Amino acid sequence: MTDTQKRIEPFGVEIDLLTGAMKDFDNYKKTMASTMIPYYADTDAIRDLVESQGNPIHYEVFEKTIPEAAGHIRVCISKLLPGKVGGEFFMTKGHYHTVLETAESYLCLAGEGFLLMKTSEGRCLWEPFRPGRLVYCPPSWAHRSINTGSVPLVSLCHYPGDAGHNYGDIVEEGFPKRCFDRGGKPAFE
Amino acid sequence: MTDTQKRIEPFGVEIDLLTGAMKDFDNYKKTMASTMIPYYADTDAIRDLVESQGNPIHYEVFEKTIPEAAGHIRVCISKLLPGKVGGEFFMTKGHYHTVLETAESYLCLAGEGFLLMKTSEGRCLWEPFRPGRLVYCPPSWAHRSINTGSVPLVSLCHYPGDAGHNYGDIVEEGFPKRCFDRGGKPAFE
Repeated sequence: MTDTQKRIEPFGVEIDLLTGAMKDFDNYKKTMASTMIPYYADTDAIRDLVESQGNPIHYEVFEKTIPEAAGHIRVCISKLLPGKVGGEFFMTKGHYHTVLETAESYLCLAGEGFLLMKTSEGRCLWEPFRPGRLVYCPPSWAHRSINTGSVPLVSLCHYPGDAGHNYGDIVEEGFPKRCFDRGGKPAFE
Repeated sequence: MTDTQKRIEPFGVEIDLLTGAMKDFDNYKKTMASTMIPYYADTDAIRDLVESQGNPIHYEVFEKTIPEAAGHIRVCISKLLPGKVGGEFFMTKGHYHTVLETAESYLCLAGEGFLLMKTSEGRCLWEPFRPGRLVYCPPSWAHRSINTGSVPLVSLCHYPGDAGHNYGDIVEEGFPKRCFDRGGKPAFE
């Protein structure tokens, strides 16, 4: 990326602090249920969900255009739909950053759930999400959102411009814990 | 900073999305009116304010402890009190980042005003703050908050861990524009 490509003008963007809706976003990415088949414990259940519901959206990302370059802070809204797959709460794929030693901040605006985090050495922790709770994922921790509620889990995320996303290692490694609905309460197993 | 000093555990912190109050913050910094004497156009008016009101707090910062190191994202709440000095709205000192080519994101949670931004080449822009408006200050732009309302202007700020603050250049250069109350409306002059 040239110095010119790294330059953008100051801008403002409206975010609904109750719903997390971003007005006039530039970029939109959706992840369909079918791409989540390798991630859930119950492969039959996620396949059934994809087929019976016509491969619905699983989660969405809304963002303004900010260069993927050091010195910038990338900003996005992450929206994870509610639901369960064989008793396991809906979740995102999860990722390390390509530049491993980079952090990410999640400010929950709507919904409830957890940010599940792990290191490549096998440590695993989770922090609750509820509106107004900011969760700080330090450098080198992989992270995945989990929606344990009945409405979309919406977070405002900030991460270094050059962080990048590494999804491949999580497909291989998985997370040491999964989050299931046990009698109406989330349980990590 | 050693690699060990750069490491922190994942954490969560509660932020009131209506008032911007941060619960259980680790660090608190206050800036008193007396230190603002060099910044306002009307030096007599700011001196009078300091003397007549017993040198009150002008603005405050609340934060959790996050290492000042590359890869981290530092997070803080900035709270600027409302008021005027010779018709000029209350403002922060403003700063460049020590690592000039680093950005900052401001999410306004309460109050109203502007983020005033300038480059060292003399460009000057401002973006409005109101609750839910996120203002992105790109790398290399100096920035200052201005409170044009009647209640505290509160923002959640994110910036690269290694950005640092350079206040000295702003004392020397100032900003090309100031914001005054003209008949009840903010005007940049």
